Amino acid sequence: MDDDLRLLFKPSAVALVGASADPGKIGHIALKNLLSGDFSIHPVNPREREILGRKCYESLNDIPGEVDLAIVVLPAKSSVDVVRDAAQRGIRFVIVSSSGFSERGEGGEELQAALMAAVDGTRTRILGPNTMGLIVPSSHLDTFFIPKDRSSRPGRGPIAVVSQSGAVAVSCLEKAEAAGIGVSACVCLGNKVDIDEVDMLRYFADDAETQCIAMYLESFSDGRLFLEVAREVALSKPVVLLKAGRTRAGSMAARSHTGAIASTSDAVVDGVLRQAGVVRVYDEEELVDISRALSVIGHVKDDRICVVASAGGFGVIASDLAESSDNGAGLRMAELSEFTVSELRKVVPEFVAPRNPVDLTAEVTDEMYDRVLGILKADPGVDVILMSLELQPPNVTNGLIGIAGRRFSEGGPPIVMSVFAKDQPAVMRDMARRGLVVYPTIRRSVRATAALVERGTYLGRRG
Amino acid sequence: MDDDLRLLFKPSAVALVGASADPGKIGHIALKNLLSGDFSIHPVNPREREILGRKCYESLNDIPGEVDLAIVVLPAKSSVDVVRDAAQRGIRFVIVSSSGFSERGEGGEELQAALMAAVDGTRTRILGPNTMGLIVPSSHLDTFFIPKDRSSRPGRGPIAVVSQSGAVAVSCLEKAEAAGIGVSACVCLGNKVDIDEVDMLRYFADDAETQCIAMYLESFSDGRLFLEVAREVALSKPVVLLKAGRTRAGSMAARSHTGAIASTSDAVVDGVLRQAGVVRVYDEEELVDISRALSVIGHVKDDRICVVASAGGFGVIASDLAESSDNGAGLRMAELSEFTVSELRKVVPEFVAPRNPVDLTAEVTDEMYDRVLGILKADPGVDVILMSLELQPPNVTNGLIGIAGRRFSEGGPPIVMSVFAKDQPAVMRDMARRGLVVYPTIRRSVRATAALVERGTYLGRRG
Repeated sequence: MDDDLRLLFKPSAVALVGASADPGKIGHIALKNLLSGDFSIHPVNPREREILGRKCYESLNDIPGEVDLAIVVLPAKSSVDVVRDAAQRGIRFVIVSSSGFSERGEGGEELQAALMAAVDGTRTRILGPNTMGLIVPSSHLDTFFIPKDRSSRPGRGPIAVVSQSGAVAVSCLEKAEAAGIGVSACVCLGNKVDIDEVDMLRYFADDAETQCIAMYLESFSDGRLFLEVAREVALSKPVVLLKAGRTRAGSMAARSHTGAIASTSDAVVDGVLRQAGVVRVYDEEELVDISRALSVIGHVKDDRICVVASAGGFGVIASDLAESSDNGAGLRMAELSEFTVSELRKVVPEFVAPRNPVDLTAEVTDEMYDRVLGILKADPGVDVILMSLELQPPNVTNGLIGIAGRRFSEGGPPIVMSVFAKDQPAVMRDMARRGLVVYPTIRRSVRATAALVERGTYLGRRG
Repeated sequence: MDDDLRLLFKPSAVALVGASADPGKIGHIALKNLLSGDFSIHPVNPREREILGRKCYESLNDIPGEVDLAIVVLPAKSSVDVVRDAAQRGIRFVIVSSSGFSERGEGGEELQAALMAAVDGTRTRILGPNTMGLIVPSSHLDTFFIPKDRSSRPGRGPIAVVSQSGAVAVSCLEKAEAAGIGVSACVCLGNKVDIDEVDMLRYFADDAETQCIAMYLESFSDGRLFLEVAREVALSKPVVLLKAGRTRAGSMAARSHTGAIASTSDAVVDGVLRQAGVVRVYDEEELVDISRALSVIGHVKDDRICVVASAGGFGVIASDLAESSDNGAGLRMAELSEFTVSELRKVVPEFVAPRNPVDLTAEVTDEMYDRVLGILKADPGVDVILMSLELQPPNVTNGLIGIAGRRFSEGGPPIVMSVFAKDQPAVMRDMARRGLVVYPTIRRSVRATAALVERGTYLGRRG
């Protein structure tokens, strides 16, 4: 099998089998979403002559010229026949959307076997079944059969989302868009009869646009191979994994959801994943949060964190969450150098002892915050700065956002931010547009920082 | 000392000492915010005759008639003199906003002693110093000196917020408003020279509007007394506590922030708090999330959770987070009764095995979801339902929100919800307006459910 997946992500010609003239049908929604792609699109439906202004073909065989990708939105049984046609025509990639395969027990398993047999010995590769397919902003490929007004489509960006669940993929897209970060692609793996997470690791490892691979998996197609490839990929790109089906109930549910069978105990999985350099997360929000920090900042070289806030309470909470091993990240609080302390003394209100966490108090000004960030950035004992940006103090202006942006971009220890403002979502979006790594709570900013430390430790060990 | 704090929350006449005509000064912002209160307001400033249309007095002594509450927005030193005047005039409550007391070390500690001496032997009680005071929606009292366009003021509601940090209080108000839930009051304790967390526990225990007391503390004024009173209050109302200053860095920071001295190890604190029925949380978001669930739902009688979702992936993640003891809440997955299973079989798609988590699949309809909730509500083996509401599936309409609302309000096991939709914030607000307990992530809905179980277990033990 040729494992170059390029044409799956950037096809020149696409066929949609099961295209429909009925606006309520997924065969219509899918066609609509495909029309804006950078490729020719050929609807297939023997009962229609034209849909949405495109000539309709009776079958795959009737389409003139090369077809790189066929998307099949038909019931399970008919899908198998279409995939056989596609393979015979030499179409390189087929996306099978239908459910009703192995996730539905006995009858479904037979169908799934037939599906695999249909491409056996050919160069045709299958994505799915039981999948919405993929979204690729750079080629405007969008095979999802959810109307755009019902689910987010973020723009181009550094995160590759790979998910065994369509809903989790959609949720990741929503969270990415809300955070103002784009994706290089979003791929739904479904039942993984062929193309699986290992193919995705290999593809995105070589994809220049992708800076971080974010995965939701309910099972490993080949756990050993996954670890081997992940260990290789993790040297150059962070891999973040939400592995679900960890518990008895969870794994039973995963089985009926995508036919996934979890074989090994979760504690074992956890250990080997960590060893392979995979950053493990536990919910869909964390998956996006951490992928965002890793894709933008990469890593930090050690775990000495310096907390700075104008709201004393946030400084205290942040320090607790950073330092505590029980209910926190177990990081070290940086020891500020004597020089740093004496420089801080010149800038912070005279009644505050300059220490970590740095408390700027309600007397904070834009300039004070700017100078303090400059001083902390110059301290070689600080590996990462956790900045709580509050827009409520009387002498702070929205100009502080620009200052944070400048300090974020310059050299020295990276800055991870949280922000508190009355219109927090709008301020978050503004900061995200400037490329800052910012979260709406202290906990999430600390968790992202811990992941940057985990990544740095891994790279240091593998050095 | 008379410990009836009623006049602090519902004064008839309020004086603002340090009122200013300069719109940039806190003495101006505070006056503006006070003007909409259900009480007469008397600005005090010897250099002005009138501010914002109100007659200005030279001193507290010049104000005719009774004054229940004096708010002092002057520097620390002058504040002490004013408090002395207030005590001599017999004003029952004084809020001292200024910082510069014990949190600033030696000189400040002397001033703080002078402040306490100023009310010694009188009936005057002090809130603060180093505080923004309080907000009481029912009497429209608002002593915060942050403009309303810079920080949220949620309406009346069931949560009493008590905070040793102004910024954390403001953040809680923002999160409450975003979640569409109101507060009975929000009190900033500051340095707690007099009025403290124990006073607040006692006051809100008797306050009919308050259904849950949410606290952020950096220290206990009297740990033993707090536990004693909390244990009593927790029998009738949930007490949720974010106790910061847990770590070495955190407690040092707390000391310079509000002069708080933490004395006992955090593990010890944790154990005794739990025994007293206090629900402990670790960040400001969790404080609001959990207070919201406890104030609306109260508690659940046992920990047998049933998960229902149309997105299989969310069912799997929810089950993992509910059941796992390592990275989850350690709850039990309910065993559905035979009757429930046979009833579910009639409603869910025929290819799905009815089990917990209940997977409605992408074929979900509003009616299917409604009937399934009805079936689960009738199962005596289910203590709480965790409902993941997804608005993306093709045959689901926004009418599902109304259905969820009806099922939420009827008898049987409570429902805790999470919601996934393209415009999640707007949908969240809509659901919140209907009084539903809903969160934007699975993790937060599971965490809230766990707190309801913790509360139920406590009441069962004490019951």
